[in-house]
Amino acid sequence: MADGTAVHKVVIIGGGFGGMVAAQALDKTPTHVTLIDRRNFHLFQPLLYQVATGGLSPANIAAPLRSVLKKQRNTHVLLGEVTGFDLAAKAVLLKDGHSVPFDSLVVATGSTHHYFGHDEWATRAPGLKTVEDATEIRRRVLLAFERAEREPDPAVKARLLTFVVVGGGPTGVEMAGAISELARLTLSGDFRTFNPAIARVIIVEGQNRVLAGFHPQLSTKAKASLEGMGIEVWLDSHVTAIEPDHVLVKPEGGKGEARRIDTETVVWAAGVKASPLGKMIADAVGGVQVDRAGRVPVNPDCTVANRPDVFVIGDLASHPGKDGKPLPGLAPVAMQQGEYVAGVIVRRIKGETPKGPFSYLDKGSMATIGRAKAVAESMGFRFSGYLAWLAWLFIHILYLARFENRVMVLFQWFWNYITRNRAARLITGLRPPDSRGA
Amino acid sequence: MADGTAVHKVVIIGGGFGGMVAAQALDKTPTHVTLIDRRNFHLFQPLLYQVATGGLSPANIAAPLRSVLKKQRNTHVLLGEVTGFDLAAKAVLLKDGHSVPFDSLVVATGSTHHYFGHDEWATRAPGLKTVEDATEIRRRVLLAFERAEREPDPAVKARLLTFVVVGGGPTGVEMAGAISELARLTLSGDFRTFNPAIARVIIVEGQNRVLAGFHPQLSTKAKASLEGMGIEVWLDSHVTAIEPDHVLVKPEGGKGEARRIDTETVVWAAGVKASPLGKMIADAVGGVQVDRAGRVPVNPDCTVANRPDVFVIGDLASHPGKDGKPLPGLAPVAMQQGEYVAGVIVRRIKGETPKGPFSYLDKGSMATIGRAKAVAESMGFRFSGYLAWLAWLFIHILYLARFENRVMVLFQWFWNYITRNRAARLITGLRPPDSRGA
Repeated sequence: MADGTAVHKVVIIGGGFGGMVAAQALDKTPTHVTLIDRRNFHLFQPLLYQVATGGLSPANIAAPLRSVLKKQRNTHVLLGEVTGFDLAAKAVLLKDGHSVPFDSLVVATGSTHHYFGHDEWATRAPGLKTVEDATEIRRRVLLAFERAEREPDPAVKARLLTFVVVGGGPTGVEMAGAISELARLTLSGDFRTFNPAIARVIIVEGQNRVLAGFHPQLSTKAKASLEGMGIEVWLDSHVTAIEPDHVLVKPEGGKGEARRIDTETVVWAAGVKASPLGKMIADAVGGVQVDRAGRVPVNPDCTVANRPDVFVIGDLASHPGKDGKPLPGLAPVAMQQGEYVAGVIVRRIKGETPKGPFSYLDKGSMATIGRAKAVAESMGFRFSGYLAWLAWLFIHILYLARFENRVMVLFQWFWNYITRNRAARLITGLRPPDSRGA
Repeated sequence: MADGTAVHKVVIIGGGFGGMVAAQALDKTPTHVTLIDRRNFHLFQPLLYQVATGGLSPANIAAPLRSVLKKQRNTHVLLGEVTGFDLAAKAVLLKDGHSVPFDSLVVATGSTHHYFGHDEWATRAPGLKTVEDATEIRRRVLLAFERAEREPDPAVKARLLTFVVVGGGPTGVEMAGAISELARLTLSGDFRTFNPAIARVIIVEGQNRVLAGFHPQLSTKAKASLEGMGIEVWLDSHVTAIEPDHVLVKPEGGKGEARRIDTETVVWAAGVKASPLGKMIADAVGGVQVDRAGRVPVNPDCTVANRPDVFVIGDLASHPGKDGKPLPGLAPVAMQQGEYVAGVIVRRIKGETPKGPFSYLDKGSMATIGRAKAVAESMGFRFSGYLAWLAWLFIHILYLARFENRVMVLFQWFWNYITRNRAARLITGLRPPDSRGA
């Protein structure tokens, strides 16, 4: 690899589920891999809600990219921000002026929050995609309890102790469950002027059930579990305003009167859109239009339009599934695509016959609701309750087991489970404690 | 405790070593305690350098105040910022407009960095007092390595891989040792364009030895240990300029030519001054002048001037030791004072004879230099090397054992020791990765 001129250069942008798996699958192949990311770590996003509620530290669910790829000698990690593509010259342009040449390009920069035209809500209702998002939500949730402790006005106190989660998908359900457990179990006895168990947690969901990606039967079970934990589930409901001290909710369709929820803490779990790099690569290829969620339509082999050397995978791609609908934005889809694309590239280098189109093997999906409560479905089977939670735990540990900090997470989890404690409930960040979240 | 009118009200400001111990010592006494802090956690500052170098997560060395004091039913934790004192009305004033009445007041807000008239250095050379300081230093140190990886100019690369620690006290020695181990052990093999072991780490110390608070023999051993780890120790040297890309160092006395160190990463460990609340309480009492380091001179019983109801302890106080010199700003001093002051208050309430003056029992001091290397002195005995390190580990675990997260820290430590890894080496914070530290 002295100068790498003869070796096939693969540039992967994004060290999430798709990019990381693609890089790992190219180990010990005749390629030189450059993995570019803005962050120096791979983040296990499905557990961010645990960071947002003080159960885990950011380091528990993040693995330094260099550390993961340390022994992969054909792979080079570059911390940098991509600002453009020069596809004619086959190069990726970085913000610091460098240009990185490629023979094959894999774009896997994922998704970010989508406020559906209400970008002003971003500061009032943070979403949950980055470590900073999670520590900011942690700060707001914990500060609300702290402010309630010194608040004499019962109406303001009640407002401070009301938490609204917008969106009833897996992230929304997990966040709501975790806030409820924080209030009922962890903070029990921590305050002197109120019982934290009185905190209201409300999920506002636009569709007629939570976890709409699952079988209706599991949606029903999940709703019952949530309500059993004291969480209010408002279905067929749309948020129409998010103000510093309240939220307005209208019934689906926009008819009927808006209901007002007095709250200062809102978490956004309602939608995602593709990272801006989607439009950038689509424009660079030319003749390609991203869809409404900013995703790049890809060919069955994950390439874009007539560029066999440009792959887009994961949340950034709109890949036609078997039923013609785009594949969902799930970690397993991205991971399987990462593996697949690595295979396509290696076969091409070796001059072997190309692989068939990418096909997603749906092993199932699961969502956790709380302590020993989850729903899962796989290959036509449906589980809920303790068994589903054990399955969820097992799958997550299995994934984390790829990384060095697996032992620590396992231990921290076990410890939290036994003690019902969340030791990472720190209010950090440089804002003064008397300032409001918004 | 229905309305608390008949109960003696103790207000403690600051949940550090002094304030926390004072609060705990007032458990099950006929008092009502209010502990006010700007942060919601007690921080074990001696291990902040581990956070700054990615060895531990902030939550490993922080314990939520409410959690620690949860079962202490006479104690109330208040998150808030003190803006003044109304000693005539016996009340503490908070930023949010509340006023908290007291019968006895304990001020224990500690110290902050001291740049000796060069406040403009604060952004260029952050100190190590808060969780945010530690994650900022971690960000800068790790970013310097990341930028070196993509830097083609060898001079700039060398500058990026040079780390200057200003101050050779315990914090400076620990920081330098940890940065050196990060470079030599943890990051080994992580980069493709350089070997991180070439990183230069320089301690700049104004006195003629490091660890000047220890016996000269231990200073000599510590210097040898540091140099054995490849760290440069510049004694009798004063920093006279800190610029974004270099530092100027002059020999003690200011004579001779300035030497230039090209570096972009400087850590400040050279001095502390008392928190601004020192001057505020001195002014409120009247007739009291804080010393050059901003400390409040206190009576032998830790009270201020003619106010037997106002105590100042820990780093904020200048307490005359047996030899007439002020007691050092160490955690054990603050802790013993916290315990002492609680005793004074309780005896007073019970009408018992007052305690004698506070007297500090010096059980010894220790500083760690690196993996299995430390120096310690206690009761005339001096240790260094592995034995001192084991003693250091034991004492620290003993202290942390007061808090719930003891098991996790122990486990994380053990894990790091075995694997030589530092899993918490995350670059976090909202600045873009291409921006400079300064």
